[in-house]
Amino acid sequence: MLLGKVIGSVWATQKEDGMENLKLLVIQPIDFSGREAGATVIAADRIGAGAGEKVIISRGSPARILFSGKNVPIDAMVVGIVDSYEIADTDE
Amino acid sequence: MLLGKVIGSVWATQKEDGMENLKLLVIQPIDFSGREAGATVIAADRIGAGAGEKVIISRGSPARILFSGKNVPIDAMVVGIVDSYEIADTDE
Amino acid sequence: MLLGKVIGSVWATQKEDGMENLKLLVIQPIDFSGREAGATVIAADRIGAGAGEKVIISRGSPARILFSGKNVPIDAMVVGIVDSYEIADTDE
Amino acid sequence: MLLGKVIGSVWATQKEDGMENLKLLVIQPIDFSGREAGATVIAADRIGAGAGEKVIISRGSPARILFSGKNVPIDAMVVGIVDSYEIADTDE
Amino acid sequence: MLLGKVIGSVWATQKEDGMENLKLLVIQPIDFSGREAGATVIAADRIGAGAGEKVIISRGSPARILFSGKNVPIDAMVVGIVDSYEIADTDE
Repeated sequence: MLLGKVIGSVWATQKEDGMENLKLLVIQPIDFSGREAGATVIAADRIGAGAGEKVIISRGSPARILFSGKNVPIDAMVVGIVDSYEIADTDE
Repeated sequence: MLLGKVIGSVWATQKEDGMENLKLLVIQPIDFSGREAGATVIAADRIGAGAGEKVIISRGSPARILFSGKNVPIDAMVVGIVDSYEIADTDE
Repeated sequence: MLLGKVIGSVWATQKEDGMENLKLLVIQPIDFSGREAGATVIAADRIGAGAGEKVIISRGSPARILFSGKNVPIDAMVVGIVDSYEIADTDE
Repeated sequence: MLLGKVIGSVWATQKEDGMENLKLLVIQPIDFSGREAGATVIAADRIGAGAGEKVIISRGSPARILFSGKNVPIDAMVVGIVDSYEIADTDE
Repeated sequence: MLLGKVIGSVWATQKEDGMENLKLLVIQPIDFSGREAGATVIAADRIGAGAGEKVIISRGSPARILFSGKNVPIDAMVVGIVDSYEIADTDE
């Protein structure tokens, strides 16, 4: 999974089957120092992440299994809202 | 998913099983400022995206599940035409 | 999918189950101006693409579904030979 | 798979179905000289990897099959703790 | 698939279910001129590739289907040992 920050939302009226009623967020991948780390990702969200929150994003087919009885053609999903993290000093 | 702009079409007569009657668009990934963000992608489209429109692209096996009764060997699909988006100012 | 040019072939006698009788091509990804766009890919081909031809490559598990009754461990496949393409002038 | 070093942990209270009781580690991909090799990855761990340990990370849907009876939407997993490795001098 | 050179081996005692009795090789991706092309990959090998040999690597879920009756959480596999290749001069 990757760490990201919610920076916005995107809306589409004309869309594929299975995309109805999905909230789509714009996610900026970041590193654990808060710096941007790569291009923005559009991810589906069902857990209510808000702008500015740090989230965990899962990509590829794992993102889709949450809808396993339905054909939802997404490739990225918010799977957690980050409460806290701890980065160890492991340099030798 | 990624944000992209439709910049063209591509045609192939000689093709694999399952590729018949698929409209293939050339997509330029862009960021939310409209700047190019990486190499072009060829994506299947069933929702009628036109040149210059901003679209949402899903990649990998999720793109294929829309054809779940059929073996369609695609790895990218237009899943929405963007109406609008909102980018929050979340800098702290 | 990505656009590529066939630049060669590769042969392996010692190989995994399911790799028998597969033609393996060396593909140089290119952009629609013909410029190289990233590292070469080895892709299976069943539609007879020849050296110098422009092809459409599908990657990941979608590439494999064409052999769905068989366990073929490929991750890239030629799915079309490009006849023509059209890139629109969409700059605003 | 990729080689990585465990550099931390991340916690999320609000999360998707299937993410309960998963230990999530922060992994810094490294090369076999110990140098950083790309952006950090968040990976699930069930084998008890500790901070500073070198681990093998599997990504994508393979990471998920370990939970095959359950819908666990992860895309990265610690699949081994590295005991040792040997890099041959193969330059010709 | 990608072209790589076997440059080493890696061992793990503590590992996930399905990783038992797997030989894990360290692969340096290379281009067809022999130059390094990206970060090393850890791949499972069942066909006996040796240090210095050029191999074909398949990634993602296709790599796993060879073990289809078993849950083997790998994402990269040696699928062929390269005998020879031919790169055409296709510049126009």
